[in-house]
Amino acid sequence: MSTHTPASLAACIDHTLLKPEAAAAQIDRLCDEAVQFGFASVCVNPVWVRRCAARLGAQQGRKSPVVCTVVGFPLGASEPSIKAAEAALAVEQGAIEVDMVVNLAAVLVGDRAAAAREIAGVVDAARRVREDALIKVILETRALTDEQIILGCRCAAEGQADFVKTSTGFHPNGGATVEHVALMRKHAAPIRVKASGGIRDLPTALAMLDAGADRLGMSAGVAVIQAMQNAGC
Amino acid sequence: MSTHTPASLAACIDHTLLKPEAAAAQIDRLCDEAVQFGFASVCVNPVWVRRCAARLGAQQGRKSPVVCTVVGFPLGASEPSIKAAEAALAVEQGAIEVDMVVNLAAVLVGDRAAAAREIAGVVDAARRVREDALIKVILETRALTDEQIILGCRCAAEGQADFVKTSTGFHPNGGATVEHVALMRKHAAPIRVKASGGIRDLPTALAMLDAGADRLGMSAGVAVIQAMQNAGC
Repeated sequence: MSTHTPASLAACIDHTLLKPEAAAAQIDRLCDEAVQFGFASVCVNPVWVRRCAARLGAQQGRKSPVVCTVVGFPLGASEPSIKAAEAALAVEQGAIEVDMVVNLAAVLVGDRAAAAREIAGVVDAARRVREDALIKVILETRALTDEQIILGCRCAAEGQADFVKTSTGFHPNGGATVEHVALMRKHAAPIRVKASGGIRDLPTALAMLDAGADRLGMSAGVAVIQAMQNAGC
Repeated sequence: MSTHTPASLAACIDHTLLKPEAAAAQIDRLCDEAVQFGFASVCVNPVWVRRCAARLGAQQGRKSPVVCTVVGFPLGASEPSIKAAEAALAVEQGAIEVDMVVNLAAVLVGDRAAAAREIAGVVDAARRVREDALIKVILETRALTDEQIILGCRCAAEGQADFVKTSTGFHPNGGATVEHVALMRKHAAPIRVKASGGIRDLPTALAMLDAGADRLGMSAGVAVIQAMQNAGC
């Protein structure tokens, strides 16, 4: 059973808005909600990184949420050097966390060397700009077998990433499952696990944490925290 | 009514495979089908450009299909400089056509200057590598109003692109409509129109051409051409 409080749950959530139609006012509200509820980060598309960094940096008081962005998103089928350049630019612009999509085709054929090399390239590019940049590797687990998920975890660890992450939230097969999170938990060590995609309510969020997720990517963070507060937790 | 033959229809089709799970053998088959049927291009993700350029370049005989790839795809929410770098690299690697996704947020708020500047940046970057590089601007029309589609057409023309294109095929609202193609036809001149997303059969393909499309993006090109051949056209 979960021992989470609203505050400890909020601290696990990347407050996420990746729809390409997102408008500036929605991005600003995302930032303000992240501060209000104490989310770990706001997770936005690269074009919004500077705006979020400015808005969150301007907040006073408690520990600010950080800016998280995405790279090679959501298909992961950009060239490695472009993913690395995109990550470096995002960190220069104020992102501290970068969620990159793995080269799915490489994982599907078991090309561990290519996948790990690409991850290492993104990690290095981001950390050259900022040593404490944190890289999450999105595997798109619903497109993979268990063996391929395990391979992806090993590539992420080998590439010195900080997290493996289940899903983009854009794949037609769907997002995180408890089983995949548990599998990643088992094989990703020493790196952490982020569950994302389709986590829309409190029971699902808590189930993902119970299965071993360290971080949750969600658009419904505010509703989930409010549900927990209303339940008197 | 359409006056197309199977050969003239095939010459309008970008033979497309953009799923991130695509395997090398499928990409090779896409190339071989493009040669066999005389499609205008193969449209693939950036990681496959070199492979396609090598395979198509090796074909002898009739005019080879070219390699088309995508940039900032499918969300269009990467930074302008990253889109430009991705386009330049793709052209260096052998792509001759580049389908870029517009910054949707800019079009939605009517920021014509920003949208046109970004398009011009991609066009310039690609044409610095190869003068005859051809740039298509994907508007994601199903996320836009008619006025925003018209604005997008003007930005594409202003940015010296060669085509406006309806859709990525990945947006939940859907792909091309006959109405949107006709609207773009009316407002995009002097540049051309590509219809894409959800064009899965011969009647739909012909309807898009009748509405004013110059090019079609399709995954079902082989089935459509075979249907036309079987109908004795």
